[in-house]
Amino acid sequence: MNTEIINIGNELLIGQVINTNSSYMSKILNSNGFSVNRVSVIADDRQAILQSVNDAMQRSEIVLITGGLGPTKDDITKQCLCELFGGTLSENQEVSRHVEKIFTSRNLPYTPTNRSQAFLPTSCKPIFNHVGTAPGMVFEKEGKTVISLPGVPFEMKNMMNDVLELLLERYNPQTIIDKNIVVAGISESFLSDMLEDFEERLDKNKFSLAYLPNGGLITLRLSLHGGEREEGKKETELLLADLKSIIAEFVVGEQDDDLPKIVSKELKKRNATLSLAESCTGGNIAHRITLLSGASEVFKGSVVAYNNRIKNSVLGVEKDILEKHHAVSLPTVIAMAKGSLRLTESDYAVSTSGLAGPNSDGTDVPVGTVCICAMNKEGKHLTFTTRYNTTRENFIDRVSNDALMLLIKLFREEDK
Amino acid sequence: MNTEIINIGNELLIGQVINTNSSYMSKILNSNGFSVNRVSVIADDRQAILQSVNDAMQRSEIVLITGGLGPTKDDITKQCLCELFGGTLSENQEVSRHVEKIFTSRNLPYTPTNRSQAFLPTSCKPIFNHVGTAPGMVFEKEGKTVISLPGVPFEMKNMMNDVLELLLERYNPQTIIDKNIVVAGISESFLSDMLEDFEERLDKNKFSLAYLPNGGLITLRLSLHGGEREEGKKETELLLADLKSIIAEFVVGEQDDDLPKIVSKELKKRNATLSLAESCTGGNIAHRITLLSGASEVFKGSVVAYNNRIKNSVLGVEKDILEKHHAVSLPTVIAMAKGSLRLTESDYAVSTSGLAGPNSDGTDVPVGTVCICAMNKEGKHLTFTTRYNTTRENFIDRVSNDALMLLIKLFREEDK
Repeated sequence: MNTEIINIGNELLIGQVINTNSSYMSKILNSNGFSVNRVSVIADDRQAILQSVNDAMQRSEIVLITGGLGPTKDDITKQCLCELFGGTLSENQEVSRHVEKIFTSRNLPYTPTNRSQAFLPTSCKPIFNHVGTAPGMVFEKEGKTVISLPGVPFEMKNMMNDVLELLLERYNPQTIIDKNIVVAGISESFLSDMLEDFEERLDKNKFSLAYLPNGGLITLRLSLHGGEREEGKKETELLLADLKSIIAEFVVGEQDDDLPKIVSKELKKRNATLSLAESCTGGNIAHRITLLSGASEVFKGSVVAYNNRIKNSVLGVEKDILEKHHAVSLPTVIAMAKGSLRLTESDYAVSTSGLAGPNSDGTDVPVGTVCICAMNKEGKHLTFTTRYNTTRENFIDRVSNDALMLLIKLFREEDK
Repeated sequence: MNTEIINIGNELLIGQVINTNSSYMSKILNSNGFSVNRVSVIADDRQAILQSVNDAMQRSEIVLITGGLGPTKDDITKQCLCELFGGTLSENQEVSRHVEKIFTSRNLPYTPTNRSQAFLPTSCKPIFNHVGTAPGMVFEKEGKTVISLPGVPFEMKNMMNDVLELLLERYNPQTIIDKNIVVAGISESFLSDMLEDFEERLDKNKFSLAYLPNGGLITLRLSLHGGEREEGKKETELLLADLKSIIAEFVVGEQDDDLPKIVSKELKKRNATLSLAESCTGGNIAHRITLLSGASEVFKGSVVAYNNRIKNSVLGVEKDILEKHHAVSLPTVIAMAKGSLRLTESDYAVSTSGLAGPNSDGTDVPVGTVCICAMNKEGKHLTFTTRYNTTRENFIDRVSNDALMLLIKLFREEDK
């Protein structure tokens, strides 16, 4: 079932806001058999809106639109949808009561500007917004379905369940099966060489294989399109097993596993806990781990020691080590990991120290240098050092990936 | 100068990867007078690529393409560009030497698959990739410029300087001035009511005003399009001053200020340092602050106390408080802030504790409850508590925003 997404908003076109809406919607739609063929980002501009919706309806059965539904003057999506689908903007009493309730529950007055949110094209069927004021709208024309949703990510997400239910009821989408294998420790081109024969044998009319480098890992996605579902499942499983056997030594996870998920699964398997001592990663590793629900089962905490005094006073890194070897050194990260284990009584600790830059710290340690240690409570540890010539953000990201990879290596060493 | 971006990649259409490339490119292009009118995300599919590039060339002078340049079989952009602009794929010796050098410097063999990266359409002028293997390509046809770049964000970013230089040389883009005012503590609709007269007076042929809610703040963007640059600057400044005076009490920053930047500027102004004691935010506040270069001047560190034992043993929160009041309580966050000030000898401390969920901790504190404290070294402090019914990720984000907002409020109280 061909589906397109149109995201309306000047803020997206000038790069002020990253378009997270389209990826969220695509993920849900694709995994339910609604194949997203195109995403168009356009301005809050009448001509662009009319043209894009018309073009999308030529190509696709389903068009999902986000944005331009706010109460302010720059938002014109509702007016444009009236032009396209007929009808006039008039107050929907049910929506109005709903919006009014939201304002009064927050002890705010229901002003005319807020009330304007309840004015909808008479040609649409509204979708209630339970967490905000702008309702969604469903239009139908010539067998095509066009759905308009708010651009605020949280509000759009909250409505996607209703949207999906409506679409599944109206269409009978084709089978799509996506299976991922997550690999690490090998570059894309070497992986591709290893898989040359496998790809040659693949039935291109049914299957496709994609390489997705992502956060220090490569996700291999095997996709099946069309055909009978149960049979397709079996075929996909066989191919997946084949694929896994070819690259077994590099496989670290499956589906949407990323490094924090893989680490968290391993810790649960071992009934073990982790603590961190972060300097240059500044809390990013802790943040990525605590994004996972249930993190508290495996994660004890992190000391973000952005300052040498804290490395010494909280983590107990001896002044002697910091002075003799520098804060960015293997002896320092080893002492930080030890300190973290002692302080938190965790089973594993990972520590990072580096010069993210762009400015030097005045010593002769070059900007971009990083040292990492992963240690278990018996004191067995691995260290890693390198130098990155990159932006601050990318540096923090890479070092966080390296640190989690080093811990996975330590798990593997233990398993030997 | 009309500009379009086409991002090629199945991974973008199935929602596996968020499209950060288009926002990065848009930001640079727009601020240099190349107005981005449309972003299209399409599949690694011959028909879609040919059609989209042709359509974009009808509408715009400049078309920037990313993606589909890897060495693997799913990448077909180069072949499509040959079809569109003529020529054949043949090895570019200069690029080949460059790619070979990258592999040998990493002690990796220069395999035929890697070598394929140096095969370019004879109709293009290459752009060197100093941090990766896939070069960029510049095509010209009927006065239009089409530039193809790798989809790996880091590699694309590294080439955008060369791209911009080339475009500025070739075109003489129109004046665009964007000025932002960042406000907090007021909703979009009330802000819009306050600015009704201002918007009525605005010359719509030259200026536009947009509301961009973002991370607990609203950015108001005043944009000028076209006209003479120096005069436009003066006019914009006058309007900006007018705008600021109307909403003075809510203004917290300017341009691309976000909460971490505003906090960091305030700390520098006071020659003061900050420390954190994070429970439910799990290191996210520390991460957001340390993303700013120069963070070490104002930030001492964070204790991510994901576990009650660490709240007690590291931060010194008395067991009595944790047992009597619960870990998510105002007495706990006050004690955490005190502990953080003591431990790090910072001038300010912010602490967070909450139940991010989705699971309850077994006590009668409801999921979504959060408590925050901001304190200065004299012990003066503000607290905030609320309850959010939202996703884990959104919860962490909102609480981080609230915590930084509370610190800004404390600064304002001090300034009174």
